Amino acid sequence: MKVKEIGEQGLLQHLFRFCPAHRVGDDGAVVDLAPGYRMVVTTDVLVDGVHFSDRTTPPHAVGWRAVAANLSDLAAMGASPVGITVGLSLMGETEVEWVESLYEGMSECLQPYETPIIGGDVVRSPVISLSITALGQAQPDRLCHRHTGQPGDRIVVTGVHGASRAGLECLLNPEWSTALSPGDRQRLIQAHQYPQPRLDVLPKLWDLHPQSIAGMDSSDGLADALEQICQASGVGAQIHLSKIPTAHGLKAVLSDEQIRHWAFYGGEDFELVLCLPPEVADRFVDQLGEDAAIIGELTFGDRLELLDRFDHEDKPNPNSTLDRRWGFQHFN
Amino acid sequence: MKVKEIGEQGLLQHLFRFCPAHRVGDDGAVVDLAPGYRMVVTTDVLVDGVHFSDRTTPPHAVGWRAVAANLSDLAAMGASPVGITVGLSLMGETEVEWVESLYEGMSECLQPYETPIIGGDVVRSPVISLSITALGQAQPDRLCHRHTGQPGDRIVVTGVHGASRAGLECLLNPEWSTALSPGDRQRLIQAHQYPQPRLDVLPKLWDLHPQSIAGMDSSDGLADALEQICQASGVGAQIHLSKIPTAHGLKAVLSDEQIRHWAFYGGEDFELVLCLPPEVADRFVDQLGEDAAIIGELTFGDRLELLDRFDHEDKPNPNSTLDRRWGFQHFN
Repeated sequence: MKVKEIGEQGLLQHLFRFCPAHRVGDDGAVVDLAPGYRMVVTTDVLVDGVHFSDRTTPPHAVGWRAVAANLSDLAAMGASPVGITVGLSLMGETEVEWVESLYEGMSECLQPYETPIIGGDVVRSPVISLSITALGQAQPDRLCHRHTGQPGDRIVVTGVHGASRAGLECLLNPEWSTALSPGDRQRLIQAHQYPQPRLDVLPKLWDLHPQSIAGMDSSDGLADALEQICQASGVGAQIHLSKIPTAHGLKAVLSDEQIRHWAFYGGEDFELVLCLPPEVADRFVDQLGEDAAIIGELTFGDRLELLDRFDHEDKPNPNSTLDRRWGFQHFN
Repeated sequence: MKVKEIGEQGLLQHLFRFCPAHRVGDDGAVVDLAPGYRMVVTTDVLVDGVHFSDRTTPPHAVGWRAVAANLSDLAAMGASPVGITVGLSLMGETEVEWVESLYEGMSECLQPYETPIIGGDVVRSPVISLSITALGQAQPDRLCHRHTGQPGDRIVVTGVHGASRAGLECLLNPEWSTALSPGDRQRLIQAHQYPQPRLDVLPKLWDLHPQSIAGMDSSDGLADALEQICQASGVGAQIHLSKIPTAHGLKAVLSDEQIRHWAFYGGEDFELVLCLPPEVADRFVDQLGEDAAIIGELTFGDRLELLDRFDHEDKPNPNSTLDRRWGFQHFN
């Protein structure tokens, strides 16, 4: 059954079951915050053929990833989600089952956080796209920003980088991935299709350090996150390349340099990159487990240095410089 | 200069000047509400070739109308705006000047309400589209909904209907509009390109009646608004056709029936359709001036009757029934 066969009102009847009944049906949705909290809002747009494709991402995973990207932005701000709106552009030829599967994916990603779909818009378009706005709430003294990093802060990543890019490669180029173990291959594909927003790390962080910190998510790649934080905070950084957690099993098929390239520029790992006082960083990484790591520190100046080994002989590697042009840039 | 020539980061530098400097640059934007207020959120998606066209709407007007549509939804909820996010899909071939003009139109529509653009996303797409999410705040005891209409409530419209549709016709079919006076023609085009969200009526309403009422905006046409309110409230309505305020000057070029058709089904007039106790309705319409009117009342039952004349001999007109299929429906 195609969308054009049931029309806008027919489609909405199918989609309302994914929304709490008392929250939809007006010109807008009403949202309440906990007393004393501030609202955080973030918007992401995903376009068929640009950000996802039927070749690599079934509609259920498209919905999941779109929500995960937005929840990741909220996590990066130190906020917990309270609701999302969905602006959906569809073709008349789109199958209603495709749309329902999309909504199922969104709902499943939202479910652990008890976060409802509170509104949106459905329109006709020559290309399928999805614009999600997520609303969150944060305690004012725990908001995270990019511009508050201080020299001496340790740079913590909450998990591996490059896994999403490697999972995409498995899907685009199955032959390449035959050298991986089936388990590793499955984990990489999972990382690409069903990334986890790291909302789980916030309570752990606040147990140790109930204050605002500098940070952002690594949705556009680890290199982009490091550059954005350094630029916004007016600091430099030293990064110990060997400390960057990368996806398991890739050494069987890729050079160290290629693995590192995907970690820096692959994007869509949706981990958090946080800047913490040294003693907090150590305890925080211990709590998060083996995939989290301190990968370097913020420094005075504006140089982003990549160091080859993590010992007292660390030297800047002249052949390793970050270049944001390698990351995901629209329009280029 | 095309978007692809300056890339995403280059484009963002052009667009940041439309945003308050301290509000953008993080993964999300922080929004504060007045104490005791509730947040209202609404999303609208507009697609090039579906909802707007260079033939009828220059980019400045596209931006204005997109914002106006969202602010109208907030007004319909009894909320005042506090910020918007913009999800923008562009082609690499899009001219940067086009995008700047779009943002100028958005900013000008927002300016009287001191409402900032607080965030968003810019992505590449084969078709230009615009997804705006507007955030507003409302006093809990003044929220408007569609489902709270009561039999006996008078139905008030805050202005003329059909003007936007007539303005579109002037643009699509200039020859048709030569029979209009230049002033009328200009006013109709203005109504289409630069509609005014009716946020101005809320303080006047609350002076008379500081409570929640039933209502919505007429963005999808007056017929759709009446049907939605009746259906959500479980009531019927009697509408006096002769009382519906329609655009000035149209009698020179259209039959009464055609004028009425555009008033019911044309859409995008962005007036409010409000259900008020009789004594409040009279005083409210007096305050709003000549284009506002009481056009009928809510009744017991579920019939939406159209009455031909507004006197004691009013009779249902068997040839006049509302049919939402004539209104703007996506995918059909």
